[in-house]
Amino acid sequence: MTDPARATVVPVALGSRAYEIVIGADLIAAAGAELARRFPGARYAVITDETVAEHHLDRFTAGLADADLGYSTIVVQPGESSKSFETLASVVDGVLSARLERGDLLIALGGGVIGDLVGFAAGIVRRGMRFVQVPTTLLAQVDSSVGGKTGINTRHGKNLVGLFHQPSLVLADTAALDTLSERHLRAGYAEVVKYGLIDDPAFFDWLEIHRGEIFAGGPARAEAVARACRAKAEVVRIDEKETGPRALLNLGHTFGHALETATDYDAERLVHGEGVAIGMVLAHEFSARLNLASPDDAVRAARHLAAAGLPTTLAEVPGGVGTVDGLMQAIFQDKKVKRGRLTFVLTRGIGKAFVADDVVPELVRDFLADKLVG
Amino acid sequence: MTDPARATVVPVALGSRAYEIVIGADLIAAAGAELARRFPGARYAVITDETVAEHHLDRFTAGLADADLGYSTIVVQPGESSKSFETLASVVDGVLSARLERGDLLIALGGGVIGDLVGFAAGIVRRGMRFVQVPTTLLAQVDSSVGGKTGINTRHGKNLVGLFHQPSLVLADTAALDTLSERHLRAGYAEVVKYGLIDDPAFFDWLEIHRGEIFAGGPARAEAVARACRAKAEVVRIDEKETGPRALLNLGHTFGHALETATDYDAERLVHGEGVAIGMVLAHEFSARLNLASPDDAVRAARHLAAAGLPTTLAEVPGGVGTVDGLMQAIFQDKKVKRGRLTFVLTRGIGKAFVADDVVPELVRDFLADKLVG
Repeated sequence: MTDPARATVVPVALGSRAYEIVIGADLIAAAGAELARRFPGARYAVITDETVAEHHLDRFTAGLADADLGYSTIVVQPGESSKSFETLASVVDGVLSARLERGDLLIALGGGVIGDLVGFAAGIVRRGMRFVQVPTTLLAQVDSSVGGKTGINTRHGKNLVGLFHQPSLVLADTAALDTLSERHLRAGYAEVVKYGLIDDPAFFDWLEIHRGEIFAGGPARAEAVARACRAKAEVVRIDEKETGPRALLNLGHTFGHALETATDYDAERLVHGEGVAIGMVLAHEFSARLNLASPDDAVRAARHLAAAGLPTTLAEVPGGVGTVDGLMQAIFQDKKVKRGRLTFVLTRGIGKAFVADDVVPELVRDFLADKLVG
Repeated sequence: MTDPARATVVPVALGSRAYEIVIGADLIAAAGAELARRFPGARYAVITDETVAEHHLDRFTAGLADADLGYSTIVVQPGESSKSFETLASVVDGVLSARLERGDLLIALGGGVIGDLVGFAAGIVRRGMRFVQVPTTLLAQVDSSVGGKTGINTRHGKNLVGLFHQPSLVLADTAALDTLSERHLRAGYAEVVKYGLIDDPAFFDWLEIHRGEIFAGGPARAEAVARACRAKAEVVRIDEKETGPRALLNLGHTFGHALETATDYDAERLVHGEGVAIGMVLAHEFSARLNLASPDDAVRAARHLAAAGLPTTLAEVPGGVGTVDGLMQAIFQDKKVKRGRLTFVLTRGIGKAFVADDVVPELVRDFLADKLVG
């Protein structure tokens, strides 16, 4: 077990909303002591889903009990469908039933769905309560648990409803990833690769070498999580509310969200990280088509993702992705639209991504149409 | 019609979230031009309820059309029951269906329910859109439209879910109050009186003289609204998130909310301002019982509120207010509870209110028990 004192700590420097990301093995069991030290006198509502509860809830609450902390638990259905108004209302009701007060905390024990849902609930109960992220998936550890984006889905698209609400602490237990399926580990890995592709070619090089060790659970895993978190923390520090540079983190996400919409958020067909993997390759290929980047970089990015077992082409999505009209409609409903022009993250090569806010929709349509036939 | 250039403007000095409250007669008809000037290029979703729509919606949208502004309308059921997750979800859905983008604005045309609901929706659609308050009740003009508190109710109590989200503009049309019932005008007047009772004895004196003119719609009405807004704006400026002095605005509200809970938020029996009127008198009487204030001040406050036609005693609530246990339970669920001690606004006399965060619950219970029998 990692002694929390020896874990890696990544600070997120956001002034009065600053917090720390603690990264290490077996932090779930040690969380009670850590929370008692950081939030004296507080009580907790631990919110998780049935799948995560099976693997981690008992160990987590045993730690709370050992530290004499008062807590309630709320268990929701697993899966993207819990990012709904209905589940949000039921979580809020559970927190109010537990009579938590303003100084108490919510705990999001789970993957990105739980983190987004619980962060949203924390942001609106009593007009804002504190919360702790305990991400149990690689995706959540390197992306969604850091930065304060919270939200739910609607029939109009993903994450169109929510708010910015920073956690007070993130505890990333790298040993928890051993309970993930290979597929979900891969999906999270797509977001790790993203940080290399955005602006850190040296990290991309390092990933090409250490991919095996990261998947196997060696020391490179914690290092990869820490480097990803540091990269994200820096972007969030500069642009907390995504008015500018933070949009870089959406590399691959506009295409990715469209693919998730096209597959009805059906995790059997496509999970978020897989959509992002394909989306990042598409972003590189589209950039090459606009003569912004060398096609070789798109090939190199695709090769690394494919080697990790991730899909990199539209053809690999089971059941297909529908028509170009459907994809364009999803892209337009995505929130990164300004006065009819599309905001896209494009790239000049590996580690050279940039935000373009004037992409002509017809060029995207032509590109996708070609990809759909080819 | 008031020329907006000649209307009274009260600034709310909140740095990057600063905005103006514009107060004058017939601003609803003039709103289109005002919006076009302030938010070039924006589109609007006008959200109102059926009752307000009947009185004001056509005039309002005619002004938008005259100014060539694009808009959609969303009309919800009138009444407190619209402050629910269900109605929130339907408003959010309407805004997304209208394809409003991040730079566009929501407009809350109505009373406190509409303002709280629309402000909440604006705060969460696309993780935060701008909105304009167009309060059509006295209550909303002098209280809920200013300061950024938004929220909905749950079975656990009033306003326990919501967020702080400041409007970008408030347009308070004092002529709109002519469509209010006498009862709702009175209820709003309770919140006007509150500002005198909190810290402005001269304003209370002025109200004792000008009450008739305010109700009749003379120049004193706009002055009363402006003075109340100035008082609220100053408190909000000092303490936007209610970590301290802003709690003063809750004078009469802890008791008032308990009475609203006890009457099931049934507007036939008790509206918010009536609860606040009784609550303010109770706060003065309770303060007198604690030897903090002279009983004469409680009598003077009660006399002025009663002269305005407001209830000032528990006995005046139709159907009664239930048991002391029920009232205490509602008080405990109110959000102003810290570690078992109650936070109450008490007073040392007219215009001398203060926040006490260590009120012993048993003293409140004994006081209420006596009030219930007597």
